[in-house]
Amino acid sequence: MKHMHYSALEAQKFDNEMVKGVTGRIAIGKNDGAPNFCMRIFTIDPGGCTPKHSHEWEHEILIHQGEGKLFKDGQYVDVKAGDIIFVPGNEEHQFKNESGAPLTFACLIPKGAPEL
Amino acid sequence: MKHMHYSALEAQKFDNEMVKGVTGRIAIGKNDGAPNFCMRIFTIDPGGCTPKHSHEWEHEILIHQGEGKLFKDGQYVDVKAGDIIFVPGNEEHQFKNESGAPLTFACLIPKGAPEL
Repeated sequence: MKHMHYSALEAQKFDNEMVKGVTGRIAIGKNDGAPNFCMRIFTIDPGGCTPKHSHEWEHEILIHQGEGKLFKDGQYVDVKAGDIIFVPGNEEHQFKNESGAPLTFACLIPKGAPEL
Repeated sequence: MKHMHYSALEAQKFDNEMVKGVTGRIAIGKNDGAPNFCMRIFTIDPGGCTPKHSHEWEHEILIHQGEGKLFKDGQYVDVKAGDIIFVPGNEEHQFKNESGAPLTFACLIPKGAPEL
């Protein structure tokens, strides 16, 4: 059984044309022997964003802490801690953090999709 | 895209010989078209517990809020908000809440396992 606080996981920073101020961590993945799906934890710094994109695989998301904006069906909607989000495959999506505090969420993907 | 606060999901209460003070909610499952895995949100009231059991399928867990005890490798360890837990198939596990506030966590399972 693997058990640790997410902040102790190895962190990868993303800052480029598509992604700003994002830290990604693989919480439970193939290296842990997870056979079917993978949990990642992402933190978006104030002013940051994930890429606006779509892909074949789905996301299952829980907002853990903070608040932000989600691109959903062509517009931005507010998200906050405790929100759950299902992004089916091939639906465009993006998170932005326009608040003054970090936005942290768990985002799970099926086996075979890129883990980070 | 499904998006809502977990507290607005349909809730099922569990109180019997094995489970005490537990509320379970299916956040993202087969009825939402989730093709590969299922997110459930559980809340354990103060004094409550989940069953001490094992089963073939794995759990991927994020503690969302509160603190409690996890039965892991034969003993109880402390868990708190932000902890991630991978319970591989066939490993015995249980959560207890001995604190004075609710303990809430996301627990994901593969397709085909009972959703609640």
